[in-house]
Amino acid sequence: MEQTNAAAASAKPIRCRAAVSRVAGQPLEMEEVEVAPPRAHEVRIKILCTSICHTDITFWRMEGLHPSIFGHEAVGVVESVGEHVREVAVGDTVVPVFTAQCSECPDCLSDRSNICSKLPDVHGFMPRDGTTRFSSASTGEPIRHFLSVSSFVEYTVVDVTHVVKLDASFPPAMACLLSCIGAAWKVAAVAQGARMRGATRIIGVDLNPDKFDVGKRLGITDFINPNDTGGKTVSEVIKEMTGGGGADYCFECIGSASVMAEAFQSSRMGWGKTILLGVIGSMAPIGIPPQDLLPGRSVIGSLFGGIKPKNDIPMLAQKYLYKELELEEFITHEMGFEEINRAFELLAQGKSLRCIIWMDGAKVTDNGE
Amino acid sequence: MEQTNAAAASAKPIRCRAAVSRVAGQPLEMEEVEVAPPRAHEVRIKILCTSICHTDITFWRMEGLHPSIFGHEAVGVVESVGEHVREVAVGDTVVPVFTAQCSECPDCLSDRSNICSKLPDVHGFMPRDGTTRFSSASTGEPIRHFLSVSSFVEYTVVDVTHVVKLDASFPPAMACLLSCIGAAWKVAAVAQGARMRGATRIIGVDLNPDKFDVGKRLGITDFINPNDTGGKTVSEVIKEMTGGGGADYCFECIGSASVMAEAFQSSRMGWGKTILLGVIGSMAPIGIPPQDLLPGRSVIGSLFGGIKPKNDIPMLAQKYLYKELELEEFITHEMGFEEINRAFELLAQGKSLRCIIWMDGAKVTDNGE
Repeated sequence: MEQTNAAAASAKPIRCRAAVSRVAGQPLEMEEVEVAPPRAHEVRIKILCTSICHTDITFWRMEGLHPSIFGHEAVGVVESVGEHVREVAVGDTVVPVFTAQCSECPDCLSDRSNICSKLPDVHGFMPRDGTTRFSSASTGEPIRHFLSVSSFVEYTVVDVTHVVKLDASFPPAMACLLSCIGAAWKVAAVAQGARMRGATRIIGVDLNPDKFDVGKRLGITDFINPNDTGGKTVSEVIKEMTGGGGADYCFECIGSASVMAEAFQSSRMGWGKTILLGVIGSMAPIGIPPQDLLPGRSVIGSLFGGIKPKNDIPMLAQKYLYKELELEEFITHEMGFEEINRAFELLAQGKSLRCIIWMDGAKVTDNGE
Repeated sequence: MEQTNAAAASAKPIRCRAAVSRVAGQPLEMEEVEVAPPRAHEVRIKILCTSICHTDITFWRMEGLHPSIFGHEAVGVVESVGEHVREVAVGDTVVPVFTAQCSECPDCLSDRSNICSKLPDVHGFMPRDGTTRFSSASTGEPIRHFLSVSSFVEYTVVDVTHVVKLDASFPPAMACLLSCIGAAWKVAAVAQGARMRGATRIIGVDLNPDKFDVGKRLGITDFINPNDTGGKTVSEVIKEMTGGGGADYCFECIGSASVMAEAFQSSRMGWGKTILLGVIGSMAPIGIPPQDLLPGRSVIGSLFGGIKPKNDIPMLAQKYLYKELELEEFITHEMGFEEINRAFELLAQGKSLRCIIWMDGAKVTDNGE
């Protein structure tokens, strides 16, 4: 069946359902779109399932990016390939990822970088030619891509440098998390490393008290709810909890400018490091006075948790299979594609960790309720 | 002679000359001031010579800090000591330093930090009781300290945690540079380290082309004058010089917000590090969009180049004596105390590197002209 589709589609557009974001911050519209065939170095993928991350919400709320098809955590099956694609074939199970790995440039060849310098992200369009493969089936209006992935659609087109092949037997919901979980995994790794080196406290900060249970299982020892500090800032509370100094390492994971500034202020003078993992859309300067940085503090940016997708995602998949990597804990909800706006609300309100959205709603096994 | 003064002064104020900053950015006024005796844990020092650093100029230009006695690079002789001072005695040659080292707090005991957490800087006043030892001899009006040092005065009072003892035979002009040169020395060390690890280019940026000669002797291979780039920004020029990527390490040494932002933009995606060494007065946020930080870049603050004064300044003095540390190259001018406003102008205009100001003008050996 996939094989037949593939042969037919290799030259032809596909019409399918997409959840299109037309107005910043407003519910997505379920529309019929046309997905053009993959061009050279591109792959067209039938999405099996997708999930939503704070980065989707950040950009969904921004003006000037619409109409767009958001979504960047997903897993699917290669439906057709463009010229020069040798790394994957029709029928392969793949995870699209938002960072490229060309495996040729100085960055891809270096251990120090995971930022491909051959294919920088072209916001909203395909990386090689700056055009779009999506259009409205009714009006022909072009629709933007997102983070070189776009997964809130039944078929998507992705550059081959942005796909990682996985074994077809790997559970799709877990594969979907792997496509973006690198950052969180790095955090967990750092937290574990810190604990092994004698860290006695790992403080989680979240508006949703329900997350504390999951957090504890992942190694968090203390929890702060910013709504429940009696008027103190989170950094004031963290300084009190750490004898006045602040934390040695602070991780910002959601891409909020104010949380970044607060994470920095929570870091200790002398050697405190603030690691930024959350993708942010705003070009406003970071809210850190240089004077506060000088006493030995540092701020470190990390896209995708510093992982190189084609090397590290298969390694993380192995770790999951060997039960060295916890993924199930992150999945709090499952639903069908048509319920995607409910999934947005749950995440925006801090009520879910990850919601798996099945393109074929019949595959929902657990609605989390 | 020192001994007699010391005995007399241990209980009495001293009247002497000071270059007092009364209005932001305006010439200093040569005035008679009264310097109170040192209190517990304090040391009164007769200044031999002092020099001016960009940090003095940065704060001299700021509103709200006047009247002040600036200056923080100096060497002098202990004239009297307060209670509980055991580390130095009357007659000792000492260098006052703007970072404290109590040698007791978790930071002073750790290799990772040079930011004493027992005695944080109290802007404009003595660190333990927040008062001043300076007043106008004519009106009695209190005058502020600066960076816990204040050296544009014949006698100053400094907390014992802010002084480092040196051998009396050490050349005073070089000692004066050691009191603040830590940062520059660290830069030179990093540059040397980078060269040893294969760095082929070390790019200096300065408005004054005369500095290129000195720079070359210190290891700089290329030079950019921001006034001479044909309208390009410095970061654009640096990217062109580095094959489009940018520099691996960027050091900001003068405490300018715009230079910090430009240094950051000159750093390479993937692994570029920007090290901030220049002290800045403004509390405005650093001009770095977090989005530009995320692709693997980092910004690292370092006060006093990360050195621990009581450990590292004697070590640097040894290196100078063994000819492993270059200091003479930095001294471009010498003059007497009464010419201090000319020294300010030379530095503000980028015409000097370091000007040694001798409190006893008869000691000027080279006026740099």
